[in-house]
Amino acid sequence: MSELALAVDIGGTKILVGLVDAAGTIVTSRQVATPARDGAEAIITAVAALAKEVLAGAPSAVSRCGVGTAGVVGERGEITSATDHLSGWAGTQLQQRLTEELGLPVTVLNDVQASGLCEGVLGAAGGKRSALIVALGTGVGGSLVRNGTVERGAYGIAGSVGHHLSPLRQGRACPCGGTDHLEAYASGTAMELEYARRTGQERSLREIAVLAEADDAEAQSVIAEAAEVLGAVLGSANNVVDVEIIVVAGGVLALGDRLLQPARAAAKREALGLSKAVEIVPAKFGPTACLIGAALAAFASLPLEGRD
Amino acid sequence: MSELALAVDIGGTKILVGLVDAAGTIVTSRQVATPARDGAEAIITAVAALAKEVLAGAPSAVSRCGVGTAGVVGERGEITSATDHLSGWAGTQLQQRLTEELGLPVTVLNDVQASGLCEGVLGAAGGKRSALIVALGTGVGGSLVRNGTVERGAYGIAGSVGHHLSPLRQGRACPCGGTDHLEAYASGTAMELEYARRTGQERSLREIAVLAEADDAEAQSVIAEAAEVLGAVLGSANNVVDVEIIVVAGGVLALGDRLLQPARAAAKREALGLSKAVEIVPAKFGPTACLIGAALAAFASLPLEGRD
Repeated sequence: MSELALAVDIGGTKILVGLVDAAGTIVTSRQVATPARDGAEAIITAVAALAKEVLAGAPSAVSRCGVGTAGVVGERGEITSATDHLSGWAGTQLQQRLTEELGLPVTVLNDVQASGLCEGVLGAAGGKRSALIVALGTGVGGSLVRNGTVERGAYGIAGSVGHHLSPLRQGRACPCGGTDHLEAYASGTAMELEYARRTGQERSLREIAVLAEADDAEAQSVIAEAAEVLGAVLGSANNVVDVEIIVVAGGVLALGDRLLQPARAAAKREALGLSKAVEIVPAKFGPTACLIGAALAAFASLPLEGRD
Repeated sequence: MSELALAVDIGGTKILVGLVDAAGTIVTSRQVATPARDGAEAIITAVAALAKEVLAGAPSAVSRCGVGTAGVVGERGEITSATDHLSGWAGTQLQQRLTEELGLPVTVLNDVQASGLCEGVLGAAGGKRSALIVALGTGVGGSLVRNGTVERGAYGIAGSVGHHLSPLRQGRACPCGGTDHLEAYASGTAMELEYARRTGQERSLREIAVLAEADDAEAQSVIAEAAEVLGAVLGSANNVVDVEIIVVAGGVLALGDRLLQPARAAAKREALGLSKAVEIVPAKFGPTACLIGAALAAFASLPLEGRD
């Protein structure tokens, strides 16, 4: 059988650990809740315990580990910054600590970058030389993949298109502290907040989607604004990064063509010259993209061995 | 003596041809007016004639040629699009035609990319692993240099930060056909047009700079708006490309710190996390950057030989 990597996804609510082959197949996986309030060592202990369980049941030797984690990741696999959601996560020497705990070479990426790598290599951008992947969920993340590799950037934030200026200037606060960024319009949270502000009614994104289909004017307008901002930002950002394809991922994809079609039109309007032809397509992978991408990073960082 | 490259800069008004060594020293150069209205073959004939004159006086054998040209350049050194300013330039197989004319291997870059390569390798970003170079002149161009190489992008437009969305939404037309792009606020042309619109007086950028120093409120306001847009766009764009340093080049640099200081503040406001530390610095090279960068591209595309 082909070689397996130990893959780890460390998120704000759950830790997922699995065995993944180089083709992206998840052979097995286990999950626990993240001890988010207990400090970095508690998280590392939880990851190590789960990893040892998974490795104990491995059908063949595992000689590499890839991690996709919440937080910004530095060049030595350390967490250079993180939101308060994970107490004490910033400053953690994650690569070093997991190497010590597991006795395996460890490669660490940010979780959005790991998911982007999966989508860029095996998903909707497979076979393309360059891709911008934007993930619209409770926040908006993004990553850049060129020639099968994630661009980390000088400060580990490359691809953070969620913090690109929006064409709408309604003074909306972005969770990063900025104003009128993409994330302030096109995250699921932003659409829910805006719908509540306009109507006084708290609705989930899925409920807003259903309301829009039922001709609720405010639901349609909130989604239309998000789509306009998303498309304009993707077209504008692509004038700088100039990738071959743009992939939209994340829970907000549930809005389907009501989001994607006007976004494509707005992107084309902003795009320069021949780049107007750039396709904007939905992602192929869902929540397992991070785990698979973490494995791909591990396979890419060391030469393959032990293939039968 | 060290090996020399034949370097060519094809602009809308002039053609410059020189001999340049790998350290970026221009040993000799000659210039003619571009026959901009006479079609692509007239331009190629003019380049070839000037190149042969320069080569005839070369102190040693020249075995490579690099070109920086107006227009968007495709992967085979062809012009994929160009403004009407150069008649018939789009569609020209420039690399192929110059290889035929000169009997040398030819490397072709866009002129903004060539200038960026010079600044990224030998200029203000020398020694950095990644840089975004923005050139503010009659228009606004930009380029991305990573690990000593220009990123061309999927459609040859990578780094085109002039067509990034502005935070100001005054409905200003951008020469690309878009609205409210950086170029519509921060090019020399844009500032001259805006000053004339507000005051009814046609003033050059240098005159506007002098007026601003003499406390002309409109001159100060036009420059302040340009600086605000420039900085916000650089901070926003850098959240996606995440480079180590940002270099500002071009004639608009004559505005000095009146432009750069507020631009730095605006960039910091938009920048994400640790990337707030990114420096924004003035370019070291002037109008010869394109010629030198063209030579660097030629040296990079073939292994060095013939060194003494």
